[in-house]
Amino acid sequence: MQKGTNMTLHPTPRLPQAFRCGGAHCGIKQQGDDLALIVSDQDAAAAALFTRNLFPGAPVILGRETIRQGTLRAIAANSGCSNVGTGEQGLANARRMAAAAARAVGCPPEQVLVSSTGLIAHQLPIERIETGLAALVGQLGTDPLAAARGIMTTDSKPKALSTGVGDSTLTVIAKGAGMIEPNMATMLVYILSDARCTSIELDRMLRIAAEDSLNMLSIDTDTSTSDTCALLANGATGPVDQTQFQDTLHFLLTETARLLARDGEGASKLIEARVKGAASREEARHIAKSIINSPLIKTMAYGADPNVGRILMAVGKCFTCHIEPQRLRALINETCVFEQGHKTDFDEQDLRRQLGGDPVRISVELGVGQGEATAFGCDLTEGYVTENAAYYSS
Amino acid sequence: MQKGTNMTLHPTPRLPQAFRCGGAHCGIKQQGDDLALIVSDQDAAAAALFTRNLFPGAPVILGRETIRQGTLRAIAANSGCSNVGTGEQGLANARRMAAAAARAVGCPPEQVLVSSTGLIAHQLPIERIETGLAALVGQLGTDPLAAARGIMTTDSKPKALSTGVGDSTLTVIAKGAGMIEPNMATMLVYILSDARCTSIELDRMLRIAAEDSLNMLSIDTDTSTSDTCALLANGATGPVDQTQFQDTLHFLLTETARLLARDGEGASKLIEARVKGAASREEARHIAKSIINSPLIKTMAYGADPNVGRILMAVGKCFTCHIEPQRLRALINETCVFEQGHKTDFDEQDLRRQLGGDPVRISVELGVGQGEATAFGCDLTEGYVTENAAYYSS
Repeated sequence: MQKGTNMTLHPTPRLPQAFRCGGAHCGIKQQGDDLALIVSDQDAAAAALFTRNLFPGAPVILGRETIRQGTLRAIAANSGCSNVGTGEQGLANARRMAAAAARAVGCPPEQVLVSSTGLIAHQLPIERIETGLAALVGQLGTDPLAAARGIMTTDSKPKALSTGVGDSTLTVIAKGAGMIEPNMATMLVYILSDARCTSIELDRMLRIAAEDSLNMLSIDTDTSTSDTCALLANGATGPVDQTQFQDTLHFLLTETARLLARDGEGASKLIEARVKGAASREEARHIAKSIINSPLIKTMAYGADPNVGRILMAVGKCFTCHIEPQRLRALINETCVFEQGHKTDFDEQDLRRQLGGDPVRISVELGVGQGEATAFGCDLTEGYVTENAAYYSS
Repeated sequence: MQKGTNMTLHPTPRLPQAFRCGGAHCGIKQQGDDLALIVSDQDAAAAALFTRNLFPGAPVILGRETIRQGTLRAIAANSGCSNVGTGEQGLANARRMAAAAARAVGCPPEQVLVSSTGLIAHQLPIERIETGLAALVGQLGTDPLAAARGIMTTDSKPKALSTGVGDSTLTVIAKGAGMIEPNMATMLVYILSDARCTSIELDRMLRIAAEDSLNMLSIDTDTSTSDTCALLANGATGPVDQTQFQDTLHFLLTETARLLARDGEGASKLIEARVKGAASREEARHIAKSIINSPLIKTMAYGADPNVGRILMAVGKCFTCHIEPQRLRALINETCVFEQGHKTDFDEQDLRRQLGGDPVRISVELGVGQGEATAFGCDLTEGYVTENAAYYSS
C-alpha cells in the first residue's frame, strides 16, 4: 500500500519529451487565462476516466467517444464555462472546439480530447475559443504551468507536478478546488509521459492508480459533472518498466490528490484519514471517506480541537460496516486518543498545537480484519462558505 | 403524501393531561439549564427509536433495554455531556441516573427513559444529576418549554410544539441543531399524548410518522451517537381514532423536522427538497437527501443565487438512481429553472429575491416513475463553521 514512499517530485515541473503546451486568455472569463492547449508532436497512446455524475457535460459525452480509438494528439480545455446542461447545441460546440484544435495542430478531430470547466448550464462562447486556439498553437512552450493556468477556476494557484520513471518523465497538469468527490476520476487531471505504452496498458494502469488516489479525494462531497482524468504516453523515450511506471503513476496521483485537497476552496490544511484493520478494503474506503467528509471533523481540524467524539461519530455512522467499539483505536497524527472503549489521557495542549499544523492525520484501527484505505480531504472554513455563497451563476 | 395540510399547531405549546415536566441547572454546564424531567402521573404506553450510529451512547444502550417492556413513567435527560464513549462506567452512570429519577418519581427504574446529550467521551457528573433530579421533581409544571430548556445544546431556543387530535393533545419536546442526519430517529424528541394507545400501536405509528419527517431531516450529514425519539401515551383522555392520531403525529413530526432544520447550527433558513416522478420512493428519498446535503446547494441558498448547475450536479451524483437528463424539470420555489435539457429563461432578479426568503424550496420532477419524497435541511453559513471550529471538546 505504501508504494512510492521513496519517490520524489522534480523541484520544478516540466513536460515530457515531444509535448508542448500553453495557456491564454480568450475572453470567456473577465480576466486571467481561460484556455489551454496540450499537444503531443507524435501520436500518444491514451486512456481516460470520466465523472460518474449522471448529468455529464458535453465534453465528457464527446470524450467517452474520442478515447475509444486509443490515441490522442492534443487536449484542448477551457475554464469559465463547463458546457454542462447545454443540450444538443452544447455537444455541437464541443465538436467545434475539437475541430478547431485539430485544425491548429494538424491532426484529425478524433485525436483531440476536449474539456470545459466553470459555470454550468451556459453555452460556450465557441467563436472566442476557435479564435483563441488558432492563436495559441503558435505560442506553445514546455512549461506545464502555462497550460495549468488556462484551466484554473477557484484554484488558488496553477497545479503541475513531474517525476521521473526510468528514462521517461511523468507530468500531471491539474485543476480543482470545489465540487470535488470524484468517483472514478477527478476534476481535470492530464497526465503526460514520453514512455511507450499501449492504450490498453495505460487504461489498466490509470484505473489502478486512480483507485487509491484521486478516487479517495473529497473536498466537499459534491461530484462534478466535468471530471476528466486522461493519461497520454507518446513513446518519445521508448519502452518503460511497467511495474515501475505503475508505481510512479500511483505516487504521482497520490501527490496530486494531496495537492488538490490542500487547495480545496477555503481550505487551510490537508486532512488524511487512514483506516486499518477494517473487515474489507471496501469498508476501509467507506469509513475513510466518512471521516474526510464529516463537516464536524473538518471544522475540528480547522479549529485545532482534538474532539475524539467526532471521530467516533464519523466511524459509527458507517452503518453497514463491521465496527466493534471496544476494539477501535483512534489516533490524531501519532497520538492515540481512544482505545479499549475510552478516551486516552493525552496531552491536550500538545495535540492542539499539532492540529494547528498541516497536514492533520486521523487514523483509525478497527481490529476486525485486514482492510486498509487512506482518504484525502481538507478542513472546512468560513472561506468555503463565503466563496460559494458569493459565487454568482450568471 | 400531503397529510396534515389542514392541521394547525396550538399557538402556545402545552402538556397533555396527566403529564408534568421541568428543567433546572444542576452544574454540568457552566450556565443555563442542563437537566430535564418529564413525568406521566400514570403508566404511559411507550415506543422509541434510537440512533443507528454504531457508537451509541450509554443512554441509548440502556434505552433499548428499557423500552422493551412498553411502559414509561418518566424521561430524565441532561445536556452538557452525552455519556458516549464512556465504557462500563458510562453504562453504570446511565443506570444510576434512571434510578435517581425513579426514586424521585416513585416508580421502578425500568420505567424511566434516560437521555444525555452534549460532549462525547466524558463521564457524567452523576452526583450532580442525582442531586438535581431529587430537587427538580418538586418543581414540575405544565410548560413543555421548561423541559425543552433543560436539553438545549447549541439550539438557539427551546423547542416544543402541540396540536390536538380528538379530545387528546400531542406535544413534542425536542432539541437538536448539529450532528444531525438521524437515520431512524433524531436528536432528542419526546412526544407526549394523553390519548390511549398500546405500546405496539405507538411503535408502529412512530415508525411510520418518523420515516417521512425526522428521517428526512439532515442539518450536516453527521449522525449523532445519542439520537432518541420516544412517544408516550398515558391514556388520560381515553381512546383516540388511530388514523387521525397517525396523521396528526405525521403532521407534528414534519413540523418538528422543519423546526429543527431551521434552527440548524448557523442556519439562516429552512431548505425543503421535494422530489417527484422518481423510479421509486427509495430513489426519491436518496435524491432529496443528496440535494439537502450538498454544501454547494446549501451555500447557494445562503447566497440567494439561483445556480441551476448545482441542482443538476446534486441529482446527477446519485449514481444508482434512474435519471434521464432530458426529462428532468427543476424548480426553485414555484419557478421552473430547467427543463427539456436546458436552463429556462427565468427572471434572475426575481428568483434572487425569492431565494433571500425563508424557506427555500427546491423541487425536482424526474419523469421516470411515481416515487416521491421531501427532505428538510438548512443553509450553510460562516456561522456553522465558526461555531463548530470554536467548539472545545474539553
